[in-house]
Amino acid sequence: MRMDDVIEKKRDGHGLTEREIRYFVDGYTADEIPDYQAAALLMAIYFQGMSRAETVNLTRAMAESGDMLDLSDIGDYVVDKHSSGGVGDKTSLVVLPLVASFGVPIAKMSGRGLGATGGTVDKLEAIRGFNVSLSEDAFRRIARESGIVIAGQSASLAPADGKIYALRDVTGTVASQPLIASSIMSKKLAAGASGIVLDVKVGHGAFMKTPEEARGLALAMVQIGLDAGRDMIALLADADQPLGVAVGNALEVAEAVRTLQGAGPADFHQHCVEVAAHMLRLAGQGQRWAELSHARGEADAALARGGAFQDLHRMVKAQGGDVSQIEDTSRLPQATLRFEWRARESGCLSAVRADRVARATLALGAGRRTKADEIDHAVGIEAHCSVGDAVAAGDLLMTLHANDEDRLTAALDELAGAVEYSEAPVERLPLFHGVIDGRDL
Amino acid sequence: MRMDDVIEKKRDGHGLTEREIRYFVDGYTADEIPDYQAAALLMAIYFQGMSRAETVNLTRAMAESGDMLDLSDIGDYVVDKHSSGGVGDKTSLVVLPLVASFGVPIAKMSGRGLGATGGTVDKLEAIRGFNVSLSEDAFRRIARESGIVIAGQSASLAPADGKIYALRDVTGTVASQPLIASSIMSKKLAAGASGIVLDVKVGHGAFMKTPEEARGLALAMVQIGLDAGRDMIALLADADQPLGVAVGNALEVAEAVRTLQGAGPADFHQHCVEVAAHMLRLAGQGQRWAELSHARGEADAALARGGAFQDLHRMVKAQGGDVSQIEDTSRLPQATLRFEWRARESGCLSAVRADRVARATLALGAGRRTKADEIDHAVGIEAHCSVGDAVAAGDLLMTLHANDEDRLTAALDELAGAVEYSEAPVERLPLFHGVIDGRDL
Repeated sequence: MRMDDVIEKKRDGHGLTEREIRYFVDGYTADEIPDYQAAALLMAIYFQGMSRAETVNLTRAMAESGDMLDLSDIGDYVVDKHSSGGVGDKTSLVVLPLVASFGVPIAKMSGRGLGATGGTVDKLEAIRGFNVSLSEDAFRRIARESGIVIAGQSASLAPADGKIYALRDVTGTVASQPLIASSIMSKKLAAGASGIVLDVKVGHGAFMKTPEEARGLALAMVQIGLDAGRDMIALLADADQPLGVAVGNALEVAEAVRTLQGAGPADFHQHCVEVAAHMLRLAGQGQRWAELSHARGEADAALARGGAFQDLHRMVKAQGGDVSQIEDTSRLPQATLRFEWRARESGCLSAVRADRVARATLALGAGRRTKADEIDHAVGIEAHCSVGDAVAAGDLLMTLHANDEDRLTAALDELAGAVEYSEAPVERLPLFHGVIDGRDL
Repeated sequence: MRMDDVIEKKRDGHGLTEREIRYFVDGYTADEIPDYQAAALLMAIYFQGMSRAETVNLTRAMAESGDMLDLSDIGDYVVDKHSSGGVGDKTSLVVLPLVASFGVPIAKMSGRGLGATGGTVDKLEAIRGFNVSLSEDAFRRIARESGIVIAGQSASLAPADGKIYALRDVTGTVASQPLIASSIMSKKLAAGASGIVLDVKVGHGAFMKTPEEARGLALAMVQIGLDAGRDMIALLADADQPLGVAVGNALEVAEAVRTLQGAGPADFHQHCVEVAAHMLRLAGQGQRWAELSHARGEADAALARGGAFQDLHRMVKAQGGDVSQIEDTSRLPQATLRFEWRARESGCLSAVRADRVARATLALGAGRRTKADEIDHAVGIEAHCSVGDAVAAGDLLMTLHANDEDRLTAALDELAGAVEYSEAPVERLPLFHGVIDGRDL
C-alpha cells in the first residue's frame, strides 16, 4: 500500500477501507508516514468527508493506537461524560460528584483547555496541591477507594489522536465533522467507560454554530460509540450565552461548590441535573434509574440537598488538594482588580454573546492562546445577566476580575457589543436543543 | 501573516492576495514554511482552484524565486516552445533546428522525463558525449556562436517550482490545473523567451484526457504568459495514439534525424511544421512570417529540403556529442532483441492507444518510474500503425526493441488491448484539436 494512493482515493471521493485507514493511522503514529502526506489526506477528508463506516474505523484505529483501559476492577458499569466545550462550562465539577454520590463509580480522564478558560483539569488546578498527573495505579486506587477520580489525559491513551490533532491545528483541518468526532471518541473509547453522555454545545460560544451542525456531529459520535458497543446519549446544549455566571478557573470552581451545596445559578443547576440524569439512567441499566424522569427527580433533589459536595471534598482530598479552599472558596486565588461593567441603556437583553465573553476572558489571561501559555487561575468574568432579562441603564451586567490594567482594558475592548438590547420583550433561551438517544438509533 | 490563516482562506474558497501568495512561495522556498502546511494549502487549491489573477501571481512568485534569465545578448527576440508531454514526442529535436535554420536564435532549457520515455535532454543523451549540463556562460556562448543550444533545466531557475513539484508528487496534488499551469509557466517565464509556443497534448497518452480539459489548461497558461508580457500561442495536439513511429530515446533521435532530412513519418512531419510555423510567426514580429500560412509553407519546404539537419549537427558538435551517430543513426545505441507484434485479426484500426504503448515502453526500461531510475536509451517501440489503417491478420503493427527477455514479456503484457479493430472504416485522427492565439484574447 502507498500513502499517495490513499490520499488520491479520498481526494477523488471514494471511501477508504479499514485496511487503508489503519495503514495511515498506524504508519503516522509510528513516524513512518510523513507529516506532509498526513496533512494532504486530512485536507482531502475535510473536503470529501467520511462515511459512518470510515469514521468508525478511523476512531477505532486511533483508540487502539495506544492502551485501551479496562475499568472492570472499578465497577461493573463505569459511565463517562464529555463536553465539546462551552463558555463557563464547569459541568464536570458538579455532575461527576453528583453521580458518584449515587454510588456510581467515576474514573474520568479529562483534557486541558485551549481558548477562553482551561479544561476541567486546569480548573481543578486552581485548588492548591490538586494533582491531576496520576499513575494508572494511583488512578485506579483512588477510584476504588473514593468512588471518584479525575485525572489528566494519559499520553498512553490514543497517541494517534494527539499527533493528528497537533497537525490539524496548524493545517486548517480542525473544522471537519468526522475528524472532530473521531478525535473525541477515540479518547473516550480508549478510556474504557461502558456508557457515555455527550454534552454537545451549540451557539456563538461553541464550535458548532447551528443546531443542525451540532446534531450532525452528535449523531456521528453516538454512532461511533454504538458501533464500538458502548451505550450512548448526546445532549445538544445551548452555548449562545455563558453557562451559569462564572467564567474563569477559580471563579468556576467556586460556582461549582455553591451549586453542589444547592445554591448555584438556576440555569447551571438545571443543566447539571439533566446531564446527571442521563448518566444515572445509563448506569442504572434498566434498574433503579430506568425512567429518565425518575433519575432527573433524584438528581435534582440530591443537588438541592447539597450532599454531593462531600463527594467533591473526598476527591480533592484524595488527589492532594487543599480542602480548605473549597470549604471556604474565598481562599481560592483572587484577582487584585474588579471592574463593574454596567448597562449602557435600558431594555430587554436580546443577546449575551458567549463568544465575546470568551475573548474577554482570554484577554484577562484565564485561558491559553497557544499550548505553551500559562493560565492565571484567579482572573475571569462573572456574567450576571441572561437573554430575556429586563435591565435599566446603569445596572450591573458583568464583573471583571483582573490582575493587570492593560489586560483589563483589552478585555473591555473585547466585550464591546457583547450585550444587545431590545425594546420589545425577548424570550429566554432554551437550555437544550434536543437529545439523541442511542437506544432510538 | 500566518500560514494557517492563508490555508483556511483558500480552504473556504476565498481568493488569495499577491502578498499572501508571495508569503507562501518565498517562505516555502526558504524552508520557513514546513512541508505539511504547504501540502495542506496545495490540497485546498486542488479543491477550490485559483482565479486568473491568483494563478498569475503564483506563477510570477515561483518564477522570481530564483534567477530570471536575460537573453538579450543572444537575440532581440528569442522564441521558446514547451510540450506538456506525449508518447513519441520528439518534436523539439526537429522543430528547434528547423526554426534555427531560419536564423531565429534558440536557447532552450529542457527537463528530464518521468514516464514512458525521457524528456528532450534524456533523448539527446542517447548521443555519446552530448553534454546537457552547461554553465550559464557556455549556454550563452554556444547560443551566440551556433544559433542553437539545448541544456538541462538550471537549478537556479524557479527553485520554488522544483520544491513544490516534489511535494505535489507525493501528496496527490499533481492534477490541479492552476498548479500545472503555474509550474510549467514559472520555468518558461524565468527562462527569458519573448514568445512561447505551447504544445498541449490531449488524449489517452496525455495528462489531459479531453479537449475541454486541455483547452482550460492551455488558456490558463496563455493568460499567465500574456499577463507577464510574453507573446503566447497554444496548440491542442492529439495524443490518443503515438506521435510518429518511434517511442524510445535512441529510436526517437533516429526518427528526428530522418525527419530533419525530409524523410520522417507524415503525421510527425506535419506536426513539426505546424509548431515551427507558429514559432516563426511569433519570431517574425509582424515582418517576414507575419502570415501563418506563409510561415507554414516555408517551414514545410525547409523540412522537406533537409537543410535543418545541419543545424542539429552544429548543435551536437558544439555540445560535445558524437556527430558520427547522427550522420549514421545505426551507430546509436541498439537493443539486442527485436520482437514483431502482429495483427491478431483483419479490419480497420479504431484505436492505437498511446497509454498502453507508453506503459509497454516503460516496461522495456525506456523511461523512469521514479526519479532515481536509470534510462536504457536503446530500447523502445516502433508503432507502424495508426487509427484508420486497414490491416490484415498477421500484418506487422509494432516492433519492440528490448535488452531483456523478462522486460520484453512484461511489455507484451502491457500491450494487450493497445490496438482495437473495427469492421467498418474508421476516420483518421486529427493532428490538432484547436489553437489558442494570445492575440485573440
